[in-house]
Amino acid sequence: MARGTIISAIERLKDEGYLKSIPGSKTFVANVLPEKFLSRSLPPVAVHSGHSKPVALSEYGKRLRPVRYYAQPRTIAFRVNLPALDLFPIDLWTKMAAKKWRGASTSLLLGGEPFGYLPLRTSLSSYLRTSRSIICDPEQVLITSGIQEALDLSTRILVSAGDSVLMEDPGYQVAFAGFEAAGARIVSLSVDNEGAVPPTKAGLRARLMYITPGHQFPTGATMSYRRRMQILRYAHTEGTCIFEDDYDSEFRFEGSPLPALHGLDSKAQVIFAGSFNKTLFPSLRLGYMVVPHGLVDAFKMCKSISCRHHPWGDQAILHAFIEEGHYVRHLRRMRKVYSERLQLLADEVRKHLEGALELLPVEAGMQTVGWLRTGQNPEDIAALALEENVDVIPLSRYCYRRQVPPGLQIGFGGVDGKSILQGVQILAKLIS
Amino acid sequence: MARGTIISAIERLKDEGYLKSIPGSKTFVANVLPEKFLSRSLPPVAVHSGHSKPVALSEYGKRLRPVRYYAQPRTIAFRVNLPALDLFPIDLWTKMAAKKWRGASTSLLLGGEPFGYLPLRTSLSSYLRTSRSIICDPEQVLITSGIQEALDLSTRILVSAGDSVLMEDPGYQVAFAGFEAAGARIVSLSVDNEGAVPPTKAGLRARLMYITPGHQFPTGATMSYRRRMQILRYAHTEGTCIFEDDYDSEFRFEGSPLPALHGLDSKAQVIFAGSFNKTLFPSLRLGYMVVPHGLVDAFKMCKSISCRHHPWGDQAILHAFIEEGHYVRHLRRMRKVYSERLQLLADEVRKHLEGALELLPVEAGMQTVGWLRTGQNPEDIAALALEENVDVIPLSRYCYRRQVPPGLQIGFGGVDGKSILQGVQILAKLIS
Repeated sequence: MARGTIISAIERLKDEGYLKSIPGSKTFVANVLPEKFLSRSLPPVAVHSGHSKPVALSEYGKRLRPVRYYAQPRTIAFRVNLPALDLFPIDLWTKMAAKKWRGASTSLLLGGEPFGYLPLRTSLSSYLRTSRSIICDPEQVLITSGIQEALDLSTRILVSAGDSVLMEDPGYQVAFAGFEAAGARIVSLSVDNEGAVPPTKAGLRARLMYITPGHQFPTGATMSYRRRMQILRYAHTEGTCIFEDDYDSEFRFEGSPLPALHGLDSKAQVIFAGSFNKTLFPSLRLGYMVVPHGLVDAFKMCKSISCRHHPWGDQAILHAFIEEGHYVRHLRRMRKVYSERLQLLADEVRKHLEGALELLPVEAGMQTVGWLRTGQNPEDIAALALEENVDVIPLSRYCYRRQVPPGLQIGFGGVDGKSILQGVQILAKLIS
Repeated sequence: MARGTIISAIERLKDEGYLKSIPGSKTFVANVLPEKFLSRSLPPVAVHSGHSKPVALSEYGKRLRPVRYYAQPRTIAFRVNLPALDLFPIDLWTKMAAKKWRGASTSLLLGGEPFGYLPLRTSLSSYLRTSRSIICDPEQVLITSGIQEALDLSTRILVSAGDSVLMEDPGYQVAFAGFEAAGARIVSLSVDNEGAVPPTKAGLRARLMYITPGHQFPTGATMSYRRRMQILRYAHTEGTCIFEDDYDSEFRFEGSPLPALHGLDSKAQVIFAGSFNKTLFPSLRLGYMVVPHGLVDAFKMCKSISCRHHPWGDQAILHAFIEEGHYVRHLRRMRKVYSERLQLLADEVRKHLEGALELLPVEAGMQTVGWLRTGQNPEDIAALALEENVDVIPLSRYCYRRQVPPGLQIGFGGVDGKSILQGVQILAKLIS
């Protein structure tokens, strides 16, 4: 063997503690091999039976309930909140990741501030100014793992057990579950075609109001300007913080977006939350929130205790992705794809389900609602469809106290043309 | 220009919605340019003054207090919990990251289970069996962002306001802060050279006991086998869950590690938490916990509500890093480096500070304690040292109710030889 190979093998064995060399003398095998330090000296005493008595839970723990989460998709069509993953420029992302990691500074390996990687927060604050009319300092931008974490942090910091919260009904199920676990008294807001309707009577003094003004989830309504101002006036009078979930307003097909509530609020009572999990890919788990100045310290302490800060690497990659223009370019491409998919879905539904399923005209996003005009039970249709690998969600599953007309939530973002055709044909077979 | 270049530019403009082409006809500039969909239509109504009245906090929010977090290091020596970042094989990590991302499947981009990436959890369950005597299924392994998150989840699920918790004193400050924020009644455990001492009288029925048996933080004591069994008996009698923080037992310099408490526990009352933030690099924010079977569902629900799951990419890279043997190889290398640094530190302290600063002989980790024998106040020394860019932490800062002899916590993991010499010289100037 080459001398170089042998020397480098010996160096490695020395580095890892297998060999020891005494300067000016020879190289020996170490007295104690490194394995000794890495493995147990004693066998485990007992194997857990797995059947011991359950440990008692906290009040919070007792109030937890299961929420739906998606494992890998097995359906061919209409899963909601699913972006077109096959169109994500993964090779570009890989290249940027390698560029960031290669020769990364120790400061990138170290991390630090609870609110996250400052260059990314700075990019976001200027992105939000142009795209969402939000004026904020980077110090108000907290990097989260998504809107879910933003809501969880807000609930912890603002809502005690017994406090009232206002929540759109129908609305995002996981928000209901979070508020219930916190022990909040949930007061539900009805939703019309201008979005969530604020309570008519005053004096509730709710601590938090959850709304999706950009594109109401799940009904798809965009909140009118008039309604936005009503909501803000209500919040200001009552001292209620607004949690603005802006989960998919990046994908608008018609008109310009209205300014975010956060941008209209003169009293710093709106917490704004957005996410990259749908605009890029869900397993990235990266989002952000804009926190009013007065709450920055509380969020910083809470984030420090809950997980220190978000992992640094993906933040640095995303920062480069945004700064080099790839993010906006990807949004433009996806907007076009989703708009074409929605158009195809609408055409197919009109062709095969005229009068039976009436599609809501949505202006943004990756899903819509089909109103069922046949008198059939949406739960029955959903169950039958799932047997044929078609995933549609009865709107009633999003209801807390209120009722909605029979309807199905239908995702189109992650469903390609062929699957849209197939999916509609299966629905057409079941709905009549 | 080449025809190909022009065609690909036109295709891209079409993809992004700038151009429109009608099949069989010509290509036109789109009526509405995509910018319209991405930027606001109205200017923001008002700029936040940043001086509006502070929003009221929840009970939890009111109990939060600031914890120390590290921004970038400005000191030359002795920062604790800092690994040797310049020795991390960043190029290898980059290569593995690129390999994982390149052509990543849509399933990697999708994510899913709240407990994390199953292949990594499976690797960990076998790693823990060999190295820490822990026998567990992958379904009990929850991927977290580190021990901090593991403790936060455990506290939420097990501790209500007013419940008692047991906590090592002196102990990890952020654990104190977390328990205080939860409204727990903190009962402090004294620490001797066998580790934390269980309470002598029964009947407290604490919900959670936080301990660091591998290497007590900050005193460095390794918990004896006898004490481990005492602690377990106490926990079983009282129905107390143990949170075993195994933050640095990977770096042992002498002898084999004792089996983890988790491995000795016959009644499934131990939650075990470990981290890669110190064995690899801190900004990775990756750790794990082993949850008793009876608590798996509660943790799953809590994790789903708090952040869905940990980001997928780093989990996949780490999985490959472990499976290809790089992880254990890196541990072996670092163990040797840290052991040499500790030796150098001990030699230098003996040379320059004999009789003034007595170094505790530690068996593992990246920091130790120096007992101050000069009658000087450790806070004064720490303040003076910091002015000269030397970071040592008075042990009293880790105390809650109890007192400790005057001592300084001294990190050596992330401090190279030259800086150890410099740092000790600065300390020798101040301590006399």
